[in-house]
Amino acid sequence: MTVIPIPDDSLFGVDNLPYGVFSTAGTDPRVGVRVGDHVVDLARALGDDVFAQPTLNAFMAQGRGRWVEVRTRVTELVSGEIADDAVHTVDDVTMHLPIAVADYVDFYASENHASNLGRLFRPQNPDPLMPNWKHLPVGYHGRSSTVVASGVDIVRPSGQRKGPNDEMPVFGPSVRLDIEAEMGFVVGVGSPMGSSITPDRFAEHCFGAVILNDWSARDIQAWEYVPLGPNLGKSFATSISPWVVPLLALEAARIDTPVQDPTPLPYLQGDEKWGLDIDLAVEWNGEVVTRPPYAQMYWSPAQMLAHTTVNGAAASTGDLFGSGTISGPEKNQRGAFIELTWGGQEPVTVAGEERTFLQDGDEVAISATAPGANGGRIGFGEVRARILPAV
Amino acid sequence: MTVIPIPDDSLFGVDNLPYGVFSTAGTDPRVGVRVGDHVVDLARALGDDVFAQPTLNAFMAQGRGRWVEVRTRVTELVSGEIADDAVHTVDDVTMHLPIAVADYVDFYASENHASNLGRLFRPQNPDPLMPNWKHLPVGYHGRSSTVVASGVDIVRPSGQRKGPNDEMPVFGPSVRLDIEAEMGFVVGVGSPMGSSITPDRFAEHCFGAVILNDWSARDIQAWEYVPLGPNLGKSFATSISPWVVPLLALEAARIDTPVQDPTPLPYLQGDEKWGLDIDLAVEWNGEVVTRPPYAQMYWSPAQMLAHTTVNGAAASTGDLFGSGTISGPEKNQRGAFIELTWGGQEPVTVAGEERTFLQDGDEVAISATAPGANGGRIGFGEVRARILPAV
Repeated sequence: MTVIPIPDDSLFGVDNLPYGVFSTAGTDPRVGVRVGDHVVDLARALGDDVFAQPTLNAFMAQGRGRWVEVRTRVTELVSGEIADDAVHTVDDVTMHLPIAVADYVDFYASENHASNLGRLFRPQNPDPLMPNWKHLPVGYHGRSSTVVASGVDIVRPSGQRKGPNDEMPVFGPSVRLDIEAEMGFVVGVGSPMGSSITPDRFAEHCFGAVILNDWSARDIQAWEYVPLGPNLGKSFATSISPWVVPLLALEAARIDTPVQDPTPLPYLQGDEKWGLDIDLAVEWNGEVVTRPPYAQMYWSPAQMLAHTTVNGAAASTGDLFGSGTISGPEKNQRGAFIELTWGGQEPVTVAGEERTFLQDGDEVAISATAPGANGGRIGFGEVRARILPAV
Repeated sequence: MTVIPIPDDSLFGVDNLPYGVFSTAGTDPRVGVRVGDHVVDLARALGDDVFAQPTLNAFMAQGRGRWVEVRTRVTELVSGEIADDAVHTVDDVTMHLPIAVADYVDFYASENHASNLGRLFRPQNPDPLMPNWKHLPVGYHGRSSTVVASGVDIVRPSGQRKGPNDEMPVFGPSVRLDIEAEMGFVVGVGSPMGSSITPDRFAEHCFGAVILNDWSARDIQAWEYVPLGPNLGKSFATSISPWVVPLLALEAARIDTPVQDPTPLPYLQGDEKWGLDIDLAVEWNGEVVTRPPYAQMYWSPAQMLAHTTVNGAAASTGDLFGSGTISGPEKNQRGAFIELTWGGQEPVTVAGEERTFLQDGDEVAISATAPGANGGRIGFGEVRARILPAV
């Protein structure tokens, strides 16, 4: 039997207990919980087959009562002795995509980001925000099948682009490959077609949160996106962190959103606070270049889910929605390189080299932490990937 | 034993043989083939468990060699005697959604439709087509979980809208509920992330085609769609016909697309013809109001799939992509009511009543036929649904 040591300053203390899908050499992927620098094999420790599966979906579908019950059991479990064969160190496991992604929607909920991109993409417009932006959380559907786990290399996409001075479009590898530092929210319990999820019912439906990197080929996106929105400029890959931090672990992180003026329509209002005080950090080749503050996000994830379903669209176990790039008001809080380098006009120095957009071989890691229930902080881990040359 | 009668003028002769998922009273959904006015239970007739499943996905994933082999076997089967308990009349079966939808993408491939919508949505622009339109098949991702089978009633969606003269947006049931008459294409064999599917490889990957109705709430769409494209205005429902006509049955329907000028980039070129001579008819409350010609579509489905994957995005068994509204040059060939009634300014008379957009209780049925291999025509059946009041 083992007692798992938890360092005092661990971001994975008993107030966190995120779920993920792991394997060890020669074994099938299954559900685990991270505690300190260890992973607990839940199927083995709890003897419950819902955890002997390659995704969290079956467990998530069981609903909030069960999420609370399992969290209580896991809290007791990790406070005592656990069978040796149910415990692994994080260095001995491989992490996998934690969920089978159903529908994937990406939002655009940071006022700073939307304003910056408006200035860059539509400089002719007097107001960088579109007229609808403060009335509804603008979002679009993305490609579920290219959501990948942290650690999966990203092949530079090829596609069409046409610069303002080009007579005809050209085809080739993107020359403006970018990141978007976001949080992603995972739906555990869906809602049938014809119904909707009010903001105050968010915690009944949303299981937890991950860090999300919405890789973006800005040159492809700029040429294609009118009038039906981004497609190829985004659909080649979206990376998420392997540990899903339960909403139940984020109670201490809940804050008000910034003041929403004008007051949103009633279907976007609620009594529950679902702003989240999450701090992100983006490392580019090992150097932190920006620290986007989730607390600044204009629209809450509860409002995003309410909006997604208000027309009667079904929600499903495994639905994933991204917040959109998180950008604070300061330059070193901007969550995309196109903003950080102002469209490539203001390069940044990264590990001694000048950068605007991503070069082959570059590596990006986004990490995030939030206040925990015990007065310290809890971690989301990181989403990390390296850029490979175009094929 | 039974010999299935096939009337001479049947749209479901041996040159068609579409696949669907059916059930009879008290039995589980399983794969069938339609012949004349009968459905053959394939699991029972061929003794192959790949057909004893509630979707076509497992069969589709087996690849084109297998699609050819099964088609040959089914052709032999329906030309002889079949065990009585493997044959049902179409009136005795319930049809289901034939595929488990993976990613759903909707295109915008009709020049007439894109021009008409450009004139209606962006009257200030001198050119109704966006600059990218003739260079790439513009498309966007839609919501997979709300793709439903023909026969499922459509609840009128509610959402935000803001007319040009409204000071603030309002919330309520859509007052401009519309259809889009499209063809949908189903991916049988996907492609892994990092690879792409050239236009000439289309038949190796695309299993077949269905009729698709992309229900659209024009008022919600008009307010939300800038800059990230349609979302709530489309995501509440997409209906497809129950019979998937195999690409193998569409050989006689293959034609050149209209001349593409300027010549598309090489990744969109191929030697194979994938224009399709499919005639659609849209019934509104029992009266045919428009006959959209698929032959007029500017971009072929092979080009759509090539474009979708050229950035390395994965394709999956069960991916569905819609062509976009099919509109011919004539008014009575327009595949959406917003075009047919010119934004509601030119009502049409339907079964003795004036109509612009859909009213509660209205019923729409879209049917389609194409030339068959034997000199006659083959049918796609229909996609039909009724509008229920908003909840």
